[in-house]
Amino acid sequence: VRAQIALLPGDGIGVEVVAEAEKLLQAVAKKFGHEFSFVRGLIGGCAIDATGEALPDETLSICRASQAILLGAVGGPKWDNPSAKTRPEAGLLKIRKELGLFANVRPIKASPYLVQASPLKTEIVAGVDILFFRELTGGLYFGESGRKTNPDGSETAFNTMIYSTYEIERIVRLAGQAARGRRKKVTSVDKANVLEVSRLWRQTFDRVMQAEFPDVQTEHVLIDAMAMHLISKPKNFDVVVTENLFGDILTDEGSMLPGSMGLLPSASLGADGPGLYEPIHGSAPDIAGKGIANPLATILAAAMLLRHSLHLETEAVAIEKAVDHVLSRGHRTADIAGGGPAVSTVRMGELVLEAFLAV
Amino acid sequence: VRAQIALLPGDGIGVEVVAEAEKLLQAVAKKFGHEFSFVRGLIGGCAIDATGEALPDETLSICRASQAILLGAVGGPKWDNPSAKTRPEAGLLKIRKELGLFANVRPIKASPYLVQASPLKTEIVAGVDILFFRELTGGLYFGESGRKTNPDGSETAFNTMIYSTYEIERIVRLAGQAARGRRKKVTSVDKANVLEVSRLWRQTFDRVMQAEFPDVQTEHVLIDAMAMHLISKPKNFDVVVTENLFGDILTDEGSMLPGSMGLLPSASLGADGPGLYEPIHGSAPDIAGKGIANPLATILAAAMLLRHSLHLETEAVAIEKAVDHVLSRGHRTADIAGGGPAVSTVRMGELVLEAFLAV
Ligand SMILES: [Mg+2]
Ligand SMILES: [Mg+2]
Repeated sequence: VRAQIALLPGDGIGVEVVAEAEKLLQAVAKKFGHEFSFVRGLIGGCAIDATGEALPDETLSICRASQAILLGAVGGPKWDNPSAKTRPEAGLLKIRKELGLFANVRPIKASPYLVQASPLKTEIVAGVDILFFRELTGGLYFGESGRKTNPDGSETAFNTMIYSTYEIERIVRLAGQAARGRRKKVTSVDKANVLEVSRLWRQTFDRVMQAEFPDVQTEHVLIDAMAMHLISKPKNFDVVVTENLFGDILTDEGSMLPGSMGLLPSASLGADGPGLYEPIHGSAPDIAGKGIANPLATILAAAMLLRHSLHLETEAVAIEKAVDHVLSRGHRTADIAGGGPAVSTVRMGELVLEAFLAV
Repeated sequence: VRAQIALLPGDGIGVEVVAEAEKLLQAVAKKFGHEFSFVRGLIGGCAIDATGEALPDETLSICRASQAILLGAVGGPKWDNPSAKTRPEAGLLKIRKELGLFANVRPIKASPYLVQASPLKTEIVAGVDILFFRELTGGLYFGESGRKTNPDGSETAFNTMIYSTYEIERIVRLAGQAARGRRKKVTSVDKANVLEVSRLWRQTFDRVMQAEFPDVQTEHVLIDAMAMHLISKPKNFDVVVTENLFGDILTDEGSMLPGSMGLLPSASLGADGPGLYEPIHGSAPDIAGKGIANPLATILAAAMLLRHSLHLETEAVAIEKAVDHVLSRGHRTADIAGGGPAVSTVRMGELVLEAFLAV
């Protein structure tokens, strides 16, 4: 496979963790005979400093010309001034919008070597392997909104949760496709017992799944029940698909399960064009430049990139196994060391690379 | 105190558990020198069988004439026919609406004697004591909704999350008052970084709290972050107030924490008039009539009734202590016995009564 991969390290620890993931991707190319070229672009605070914009046109062109994008993180106290013309986070919103990235994909996988750090009991969490598909460009966050002052001086404000058939169809299809490569089960989360917009969601989900994925098992769970099940029986779920707000809540709740946010990657996908891959952690300005950040989430984001944008499943699994192996040997960065001995960012990258090459 | 209390046992185990709570209330009256009179009304499936309606006018009159209402549970397979004219649950919706019950109050308290059944680790959950105030008659479930077919044949559906100042003010006041009798801290949950309706919620919360409850500490947490914190650091919260949908999700998530739904009560309050008190569990038709249902949630709902509607804090605490004592002695109904020896519904009621009288 020949592919151009855009690297957007961003701010803070983003630079350090993307560097380690890049080394892994280079090793994948060499070992499996692919040709990856890497192009770097500015996003976030560093882009504001250099160009005045959080997402310069040049970065956007680089991304459009690439098959996939690997992002570090954006933001930091330097750009937190509320009166600033633009903020680093605006770069993220713009790139998602410009590239039509309507699906946020979030694996929640509990590493057997780290579950003891989970707030949940080990027997509940060990073996959890959920893949969330959250709709990212519709629903309550993007519907009509407003506020008015009433004759009596009180105020009324509203937001609208709105979905059209095509928005539901396209994310259901992504979820259905992903389920085929996994345990062939998709759980759709809605509030169809109360909300009309959820009833359209449920009907569309049923129609697409029956017509296009008859081989995939489906189920419906209400959002409030799902918030319970995610704690009480998370192993019951494989692929989960839901709308924007419900997905926002559930993926954050789910991120607590593995007990180590430093390991969780995320992808944002569109209908075609490049997907965007990143760790779910932030730019962590307090530890930036110290060489102690955990690069594993970004390395696992690179594995997702190989799987979802380049369709290199074997290569993705090889990286994931290497990470597993390193953790099984007890190597830890400070954030997951629980006060015990910790390795540096670069050393953790090397350890994964060695494990990858040794398989 | 003289008070009339309406008893609406409803269906299934509702009858059995309300009977035990009534005995406790009678004992409270006797021991503390109050005069409670009890009036019974029909609601749910039994009301449909007798009158054709899930909430007969007579029941509503009884409730209006009472200071507080103790409800068991409604529903069962007998009334599950989807083509039926009315359903048992319609009785619940109607009574809330008719009595203007806009606040759902849900304590999440982890009994030290039962936390080992929680999916969360004991050190996370032991000592949790949260009081949720969920707005119950506004927001996304009650705003304008609709669906239309577009020119291209696709469909679009929407619901509206809408709040007016007065709806927010009145529930914030209830939360503020409750906080005064507790640890004097209120957490407001919203999504003000994205939603206009949440910005109105936050501004109104701040205004009411600063003007009327300057002695109470306040904080804001975003709904997605709260879904995380509720698992990772639930002991950080005391009183939590939020809108309808967010409260629906969070109270259900929170109900998993104590590891025993059979102990959780709930109240629905209005501005004045009687409050409605009930266990959060359902009518459990599978075990109805067997005498094995857990009456503790309903007994604790009766304690809430004493506290919130009759302002009898000492009496409420006395019941809660009696329940604690019985659990500390190892007595369990089947649902919380973990397969071990279990007592009957009536015996559990007697044990709590004995402990109450012994103090
Ligand atoms: Mg979030
Ligand atoms: Mg619910």
